[in-house]
Amino acid sequence: MALKRELVISEIYKAAREWLYDNDYLELITPRVVRASGACENVNTLYTVSANGDSNWYGNTAYLSQTGQLFLEAHVPALKRVFCDGPSFRAEGTVDARHLTEFRMIEIELATNFDGLLDQIQGFISHLVSHIIYVNQSKNLGLSEERIRELKTCPRVFSQITYDDAIAKLQAFGIKINWGDDLKHTHEALLSVAYENQPIFITRFPDPMWDHGKQIEVEKFFNMSPDKEHPGRVLSCDCILPYSGEAVGSAERIADVETMLARLQNSRMFKRLVEMGGSVDDFGWYADQLRSHGSVPHAGCGFGMSRITQFILGEHDIRNAVSFPSNRATLI
Amino acid sequence: MALKRELVISEIYKAAREWLYDNDYLELITPRVVRASGACENVNTLYTVSANGDSNWYGNTAYLSQTGQLFLEAHVPALKRVFCDGPSFRAEGTVDARHLTEFRMIEIELATNFDGLLDQIQGFISHLVSHIIYVNQSKNLGLSEERIRELKTCPRVFSQITYDDAIAKLQAFGIKINWGDDLKHTHEALLSVAYENQPIFITRFPDPMWDHGKQIEVEKFFNMSPDKEHPGRVLSCDCILPYSGEAVGSAERIADVETMLARLQNSRMFKRLVEMGGSVDDFGWYADQLRSHGSVPHAGCGFGMSRITQFILGEHDIRNAVSFPSNRATLI
Repeated sequence: MALKRELVISEIYKAAREWLYDNDYLELITPRVVRASGACENVNTLYTVSANGDSNWYGNTAYLSQTGQLFLEAHVPALKRVFCDGPSFRAEGTVDARHLTEFRMIEIELATNFDGLLDQIQGFISHLVSHIIYVNQSKNLGLSEERIRELKTCPRVFSQITYDDAIAKLQAFGIKINWGDDLKHTHEALLSVAYENQPIFITRFPDPMWDHGKQIEVEKFFNMSPDKEHPGRVLSCDCILPYSGEAVGSAERIADVETMLARLQNSRMFKRLVEMGGSVDDFGWYADQLRSHGSVPHAGCGFGMSRITQFILGEHDIRNAVSFPSNRATLI
Repeated sequence: MALKRELVISEIYKAAREWLYDNDYLELITPRVVRASGACENVNTLYTVSANGDSNWYGNTAYLSQTGQLFLEAHVPALKRVFCDGPSFRAEGTVDARHLTEFRMIEIELATNFDGLLDQIQGFISHLVSHIIYVNQSKNLGLSEERIRELKTCPRVFSQITYDDAIAKLQAFGIKINWGDDLKHTHEALLSVAYENQPIFITRFPDPMWDHGKQIEVEKFFNMSPDKEHPGRVLSCDCILPYSGEAVGSAERIADVETMLARLQNSRMFKRLVEMGGSVDDFGWYADQLRSHGSVPHAGCGFGMSRITQFILGEHDIRNAVSFPSNRATLI
């Protein structure tokens, strides 16, 4: 029986929502045309939006959102567990098997700590995998028996390795990599294979806002909590999946407005934003929200749904995991 | 008890998905950065998207999608019933209680005829209303007893009036309006009141591609089926809700590629698109799809979720029906 990709994708989203509702998440509809508060760590890949040829139509530069994170964070104190579900846009020029200029992301934010966050991530992914295994036959999804057999070996609790240990392990494999370097796709793939080709968590990345005595390559969103037990690290976690690589980025967040603003203004992202004509005003509404309503300890993540789909399908090319692949060469 | 808007919104989306899954719709993830094939009838309100200051970064002008309709239509022959759920963008300069520059739309397309389509629309809206009535107390949504009492009077089968009869009725009310004119929000509100202040269907609008012997104001998407029983009319239907007005646009679609292309090139939208530098190439992928896979009789609609929410809440200002209102004056 042939694989029916659109059926699989639809079942994955259905299972995702089922999990979100069963785990008491409320859906927020977050805006997708925004100021720079909708950026991830890299403002260079922001699209700008114009109306009638005017890129200042809104009175400020308008960007396409890469994340709804801050919009979700603003509602955590009142609602406890929230999610959003929509397109994430990245002006990535590379046309290959790994990059899309637009992909669907489901993001969650909740009042919890770092360990609680990791529980949510592995719970979500495990539920999707279980659901597809369960309905593959009854709904005629067409996943091969071999792929179903492989998916059945996916653990419910994922192996964890710190960034520091990951670097040491890669060096032991003979890879030329230094502490502070970014983990490339090939590095992630090697680590995943080292853990029986299963999903893994890489945790506690270097804090770019810490004085390491040298410039480091790792960039992380400014709004991550420093790890008190491991100075110079942040409480962040990437989930690496077989086939697709980094499919989830996550962290415990900053809850204090002054710390948030100080870290923002210390970030490399902010320097680039200022060069682009932006300022701390781009984050003004969020700072105001924290000042007027405060916050609570919380954490969250973004599930890259196309990469999760790619993993479930066992596809080497992400373009085979979406119905309408978007990249610089294929605008329809 | 105070109204908890975010809880109501989340329950509305939950009920919407429940209805879609129960009625065998499959979710498609449609692109939001597109060529003009993502436009509704008005290409003048398209946003353009640039990367690195280049509005031709994709090799063609890239727009923000207003509808995923054609992307859904392309999959109806194989999948029968499909939906998409995402932001719709309109560069509307008006800042008032009725307009947003970005709102959430759930769109459906299915292999059915015009009457079958109207059944789906009233089924969807009725389910949302019933769900909110049902959970208002148990989930502490905070809708007033009065609003719940009003919602309970909402019929499961909506009154229908043709565009022709609507014009005659408005003229009988003493309104200055001519056949061929657009129905303005005040007209829709009057008609809704005339039907006991309940949702109504206005059907069979004038066909802009028909020779009426004069220019008419009504504009409709080119891809609507002419009504064989009523020459010069299309099988289209707007659903008008109390409080919010037009909340759903719908039609039976063209299934034949040559008819589709002829109507496209005869439309006022197309003339404007050509002035903007576009061409029939913007719809090339969809024409290719119809040529290679054919189509089946089908119909569909877009549910303006913010206007449906506004109706359920009984709010006069749409900005009170969304968590982050988007208009030209409020970019955050």
